[in-house]
Amino acid sequence: MTRRTGRRPGNPDTRESILTAARAAFAERGFDKASIRSIAGTAGVDPALVHHYFGTKDQLFLAAMNSPIDPRELLPEALAGGRDEFGERMIRLFLGVWDSPAGKAGIALLRSAVSSEWGARLMREFISSLVLRRALEHLDLDPAEAPLRGSLIASQLAGLAMIRYIVRLEPLASAPPETIVAAIGPTIQRYVTGPLGEGR
Amino acid sequence: MTRRTGRRPGNPDTRESILTAARAAFAERGFDKASIRSIAGTAGVDPALVHHYFGTKDQLFLAAMNSPIDPRELLPEALAGGRDEFGERMIRLFLGVWDSPAGKAGIALLRSAVSSEWGARLMREFISSLVLRRALEHLDLDPAEAPLRGSLIASQLAGLAMIRYIVRLEPLASAPPETIVAAIGPTIQRYVTGPLGEGR
Repeated sequence: MTRRTGRRPGNPDTRESILTAARAAFAERGFDKASIRSIAGTAGVDPALVHHYFGTKDQLFLAAMNSPIDPRELLPEALAGGRDEFGERMIRLFLGVWDSPAGKAGIALLRSAVSSEWGARLMREFISSLVLRRALEHLDLDPAEAPLRGSLIASQLAGLAMIRYIVRLEPLASAPPETIVAAIGPTIQRYVTGPLGEGR
Repeated sequence: MTRRTGRRPGNPDTRESILTAARAAFAERGFDKASIRSIAGTAGVDPALVHHYFGTKDQLFLAAMNSPIDPRELLPEALAGGRDEFGERMIRLFLGVWDSPAGKAGIALLRSAVSSEWGARLMREFISSLVLRRALEHLDLDPAEAPLRGSLIASQLAGLAMIRYIVRLEPLASAPPETIVAAIGPTIQRYVTGPLGEGR
């Protein structure tokens, strides 16, 4: 799993002001409309300093959310087998992250999403702009269906995290990853490539 | 939707002591092992008073959880079409509850499950003892597979609640129920009657 270690430049108070401004901007305006310039303005610093401290807008967003992973580093693994293997690869990747030490931070993110409106908005932006959009654009789906397919995938993965790691309902809580890949992989795959209105 | 209205007998402090004792007992010992007698003992009241205030153990549990619904009143609707219609009926019933005023209490239950260990345990008991066990015993599933099938169903339904009602990711957040029934019904159906290890 990828963990953002490395140097953390700058004054801690300034860093925190930037992160607070970033959380507000991303939650209120969404990932696309929030700009580094306006975030810097709110925090009372120069935009160059935001880039210097946090890097790209993606990286600032991940830092503001306390995300333990960078989806851009992981998605290529899920996408490597093309559309027909996406279901199985995605679920295996998801379990790999959540079963690792990064899973603890994942639980914290879910808690935050459920306990506050801002947390929910940041989670929405994270799922839609940083994960789904980037995954789906590589899968060459019908643009009219892609958003529904993406949110269906999110529903199965979010629920798996809830039931396996938070509610800890057995046997899903302690099932080996391969059991879950075999059971849920086909669900994700149908959400990507299958009919969405079977029997209708 | 069913809402528990009607009279609420008794002294509010005594009621609250019983509910507090019940929450602790159900979370610590689980639904099956918690007894009205021991709950009454913890609350310092006679077991008959617990029955008088709350009715059966099921009803006491639902009151302790602040559940807006009684699964026993709803499940017959999901089970009416037998095993082959369960997926579609279950998802339609689930959306009926969550799209109704009872959905607000559902959100509160999810919040509680995510934010505290006790909330998570009560949710686990609710799902396993009051919903899944009773639903699955009517579906005549292979006993070796039924628990995994049940927890898979729970994972898809919990995630649908998260994504549609809490994270509110579009288009799932505002999709008409029939779109969701058509898309997710077959998932639930596969978890009930389909192979769990496709391609293996």
